[in-house]
Amino acid sequence: MITSKTNPQLKYLATLLKKRSAREADRVFVCEGRKMFFEILTQRPEYLVKAYWSESGAAELADAERALMLACDWETVSDAAFCAVAETVTPQGVLAIVRMPEYTLSDMLKGENDRLVILESLRDPGNLGTILRTAEAAGIGGIILSADSVDTFNPKTVRSTMGAILRVPFLYAEDFPQMLAELKRRGVTLYAAHLQASVPYTEPKYPGRCGILIGNEANGLTAEATALADVRIRIPMEGQAESLNAAIAAAILMYHTKL
Amino acid sequence: MITSKTNPQLKYLATLLKKRSAREADRVFVCEGRKMFFEILTQRPEYLVKAYWSESGAAELADAERALMLACDWETVSDAAFCAVAETVTPQGVLAIVRMPEYTLSDMLKGENDRLVILESLRDPGNLGTILRTAEAAGIGGIILSADSVDTFNPKTVRSTMGAILRVPFLYAEDFPQMLAELKRRGVTLYAAHLQASVPYTEPKYPGRCGILIGNEANGLTAEATALADVRIRIPMEGQAESLNAAIAAAILMYHTKL
Repeated sequence: MITSKTNPQLKYLATLLKKRSAREADRVFVCEGRKMFFEILTQRPEYLVKAYWSESGAAELADAERALMLACDWETVSDAAFCAVAETVTPQGVLAIVRMPEYTLSDMLKGENDRLVILESLRDPGNLGTILRTAEAAGIGGIILSADSVDTFNPKTVRSTMGAILRVPFLYAEDFPQMLAELKRRGVTLYAAHLQASVPYTEPKYPGRCGILIGNEANGLTAEATALADVRIRIPMEGQAESLNAAIAAAILMYHTKL
Repeated sequence: MITSKTNPQLKYLATLLKKRSAREADRVFVCEGRKMFFEILTQRPEYLVKAYWSESGAAELADAERALMLACDWETVSDAAFCAVAETVTPQGVLAIVRMPEYTLSDMLKGENDRLVILESLRDPGNLGTILRTAEAAGIGGIILSADSVDTFNPKTVRSTMGAILRVPFLYAEDFPQMLAELKRRGVTLYAAHLQASVPYTEPKYPGRCGILIGNEANGLTAEATALADVRIRIPMEGQAESLNAAIAAAILMYHTKL
């Protein structure tokens, strides 16, 4: 059992939780919590690098769970050392180092009616996690992000996805305008959610492949991205509301285009 | 200018930010940020009790803004003392003590087609703020909360509302089942968002007054509240998604029933 807070493995875990650069260098990230751990273990065991169970978390393992874990590399950590590493106030017993899934556009565009969500400069990790979670439920084919968007492997994002992080394909576009052009070449009609658009989102029929463009929380979509869209759509707002939360706008459009 | 972190007024501000009981005892809460401050000052000046500007925030005030503030009670606070009180990492220059708006059911039910959102045991302050923000945009008449729900005047909730806190009527129901019965007497049809419902949310036409019931983030609606609803509706989910975030589910239903 690991008991020292300065144990190199725990320091590595802490670095992976804090630093995007460290995650990207090793192409791994950290998953927290029993539920996500057992999902990975049963559905994507090849992604699991190593799991660290807190002493009290390990003590609660059922025999069947222990048996399941025979194939995986895991270790226990004293509760005090575990809490020093875990991000959340109430750590859920296990931190797992997991390989990053890697996707291409072909993983997202498999049929004639695939829908994508395209995020430009999204900044809030919770918003991104919620968008991934909603995207799975809404049957979205994948998420495309501009390179300056928040990291999908940010611990807060991973938690907010409620497991969808390992099920919804996503990729970062180094050159965002070029990616939008490529999507159009592949038959994706681009709908830009825009506060100044004249077309209400309920008007288009969204036939065939479609992409829903959502911009930065404070500034919306850039003029360049907006210009590359095929249709600008607006979510009508009453009262003095000036905008919707980005994850809310994305959800309304993901579910509406599913109808 | 207040410079001491132990100044009694600053201590009072800090207590109001932290404690629901203190807010409720004095029927006031704290608003953060220039935008919300000037909205209150111009639209609801009678709600403003006192404003505290950080030294650097006050230095950025335009002459017209200073002139506007003649009628209100305000004071400057040294940046160091201000930061010690402010909740956010990047405090936005002003903290204002504001009277709590008070509403009744009649404020929410004014017409024949009013829609309400009814929250049972909602726990996350960010979710509640986002629901209030979305409710204003979706033209919802008001929000009803079970007494054990999170406080609408929690600083995180207030921030997430983006100003809607002072524009969307809401009230807490001491006796939640009794409130649901009262709503039905007033002609409100109650639709319970429920994972086990057989009716997809897209099926009902939502005529007349309607109430959208949303349950606790982890456990959903109680059996008692569900039984009191007229219709149980389900938001279909694909993949392995087990549920949607409460604010997302509320938003999808608020916007769908607006169609």
